[in-house]
Amino acid sequence: MRFRDGGGLLYSTLARLVASDAAASRAELVTAAGLARSTVTRHLDALIEAGVITEGGPVRRGTRGRPAARLALNPRAGLVASADVGARDARVAVLDLGQDLLAETTVALDLESGPDAVLGRLADTVRELLDRAAERTAAARLCALAVGLPGPVDHAAGTPVRPPIMPGWDGHPVGRDLSARLGCAVLVDNDVNLMALGEARTLPAGQTPLLFLKVGTGIGGGLVSAGGELHRGADGAAGDIGHMPAPGAEGVACRCGKTGCVEAVASTAAMLDRLRQDGAVQDADGLAGTGDLVRLVRHGDAAALRVVRAAAERIGEVAALLVHVYNPARLAIGGALAAAGDELIAGVRAVVYRRALPLATRHLELAPSELGKRAGYVGGGVLAVEQVLSPDGITGLMGPG
Amino acid sequence: MRFRDGGGLLYSTLARLVASDAAASRAELVTAAGLARSTVTRHLDALIEAGVITEGGPVRRGTRGRPAARLALNPRAGLVASADVGARDARVAVLDLGQDLLAETTVALDLESGPDAVLGRLADTVRELLDRAAERTAAARLCALAVGLPGPVDHAAGTPVRPPIMPGWDGHPVGRDLSARLGCAVLVDNDVNLMALGEARTLPAGQTPLLFLKVGTGIGGGLVSAGGELHRGADGAAGDIGHMPAPGAEGVACRCGKTGCVEAVASTAAMLDRLRQDGAVQDADGLAGTGDLVRLVRHGDAAALRVVRAAAERIGEVAALLVHVYNPARLAIGGALAAAGDELIAGVRAVVYRRALPLATRHLELAPSELGKRAGYVGGGVLAVEQVLSPDGITGLMGPG
Repeated sequence: MRFRDGGGLLYSTLARLVASDAAASRAELVTAAGLARSTVTRHLDALIEAGVITEGGPVRRGTRGRPAARLALNPRAGLVASADVGARDARVAVLDLGQDLLAETTVALDLESGPDAVLGRLADTVRELLDRAAERTAAARLCALAVGLPGPVDHAAGTPVRPPIMPGWDGHPVGRDLSARLGCAVLVDNDVNLMALGEARTLPAGQTPLLFLKVGTGIGGGLVSAGGELHRGADGAAGDIGHMPAPGAEGVACRCGKTGCVEAVASTAAMLDRLRQDGAVQDADGLAGTGDLVRLVRHGDAAALRVVRAAAERIGEVAALLVHVYNPARLAIGGALAAAGDELIAGVRAVVYRRALPLATRHLELAPSELGKRAGYVGGGVLAVEQVLSPDGITGLMGPG
Repeated sequence: MRFRDGGGLLYSTLARLVASDAAASRAELVTAAGLARSTVTRHLDALIEAGVITEGGPVRRGTRGRPAARLALNPRAGLVASADVGARDARVAVLDLGQDLLAETTVALDLESGPDAVLGRLADTVRELLDRAAERTAAARLCALAVGLPGPVDHAAGTPVRPPIMPGWDGHPVGRDLSARLGCAVLVDNDVNLMALGEARTLPAGQTPLLFLKVGTGIGGGLVSAGGELHRGADGAAGDIGHMPAPGAEGVACRCGKTGCVEAVASTAAMLDRLRQDGAVQDADGLAGTGDLVRLVRHGDAAALRVVRAAAERIGEVAALLVHVYNPARLAIGGALAAAGDELIAGVRAVVYRRALPLATRHLELAPSELGKRAGYVGGGVLAVEQVLSPDGITGLMGPG
């Protein structure tokens, strides 16, 4: 009966304050929540009884008198999973509610084999990881899964929307499908959105609004607001910047069907094409993927560096526009090439500072992604834990069983 | 003592649910707030006792049994003021908490006369309007004022930041200054931000994210998120699109000190310059301001229409980029020229649909501002009422006196 009174909002508010470390004791919680002490006490006791929050050792803060007991989210009150799906593989992880990684793997997938095969494989992988995690966490159950897909996504509906590199997936109810397979809440989002969210929530405060640019075989962007929320846009197309016009790309065909897109001249695929055409690299036929380009850049290959610098110019022009419109505190650049050396970042930075208004760049941090390859699944973990601690999610966590 | 328990969050939550018409009875409030009935009752009774919420006639909804008493925000529990400040004048309004306009005026100002003279004049004007409003609303006091300024603003600090057309204003504590003069909370924002907020909150649901473009003697933009919040950016520079590069503007000097900005070739000032240079208009010397251009367009002057169409092309190129990055559900165009006829809107629309990705435009509404000249002060009213109903503001509203 206790949970029938619709206390979701209050439970959620208190749990999130404790989880975010904004309140470490009952007194701090009363202050931080702006709620009456009696209201806090009643709901907090229920959260403790349900095992969601623990009350333990003393708070180590400079307070006088008897030290207060420390409140903490019980990280093992539930589990979440996260899947960062790419064209050829998916990185899948199981985490606890404290965002600690319990098990992780990368599985080969072929998105062109269609939703049924791919989602079945994903669900199997999540189950295997749960089994592995169970060796370390008795009794915890999967509460939510977040999935990042390489294309535009209708987040509310949980479906891809006309994804260029996912034939057969348009409108497929990925969220509903996986939810039926795994029996938990499922959140579906664009892959770069999840990277942006992961990066924004991992960095120290003051780094939002944040703009995440992923430069890989495609080019994509993700926008996170000052308050730390994803900006997805009306059709899930916000930040879909690979298909913005770039100077020097006029007339070049893009896989989206148009011409002149920045992705057509500055993705790693386009850089590899350019290297093959130039013939300036030995063993040009061996240039199969982004990894080969990264290898050449790491070795300081002159032709590869030249190609990367030219691409960085084009990406910089588009980035300058983004900085101008969105005025982020941080522009994070992800993808293997950004992590491989300074060439890409330095090239983008030079153009952004030259082109954007001084006001929009005077506090701008422009840097490679801190999380690197982990950004996607970390962001998925954030989204999934937020779902678990939301008013809807937390009543499930506290419910029977 | 009752208000010493820090109930701001709960009072604020309940008042906002009632104010937004999301809950019209005690039962609906319990459901909508997701709170225990006893918690709602206790806090609601305090709000009613303080005169912030009224409980009156029956709710006219299709419910069975005894009709519930209707809850409503008492619009006269407090007053707010709003000032939309332009280069030469300010439109100032006093509204009640239900956003109903009680008194309004336009005063001549010269921003170049500096903050002291201008803010003194503004404060006097607000006081005069309060006197006029007092004839209709006994005892209500001014709780908050929102001010829109024509330049970048640090909203948190309440100061303009290097505003190009406000010499002597850089860093002036406008919020603190006006707060001292008027004894109420003061919110300072960019003028186009307030227009965007006014437009977004006046339109029916489903029109956010919203992008507001103002085309006047300058060109500016405002971004409102899916949740209806302003996106201001890290430095208050988000949406400051007048200084984005436009095709055809290469080498043209802009008042910002750079060249090639869309404002330099597509503001109404630039259009008037072009008309004067072309010499195709009779009485070219009489073309003093935007009003003259609007008059020519209304009369179907061929040379003026040609100039507007050319400017619309350039604005359209920039708008297409914005649509691509932010993926709004609605692009509203404000300023007297947008209201004067179809030329500007049709020209922008043609380019946006041609240039942006189909996914980002398939649901896009592109239309002149519904609020027209009122957008700025309506948005200021929204911001001010939100402040009054916030956890901080509402304890003030309920406090002693």
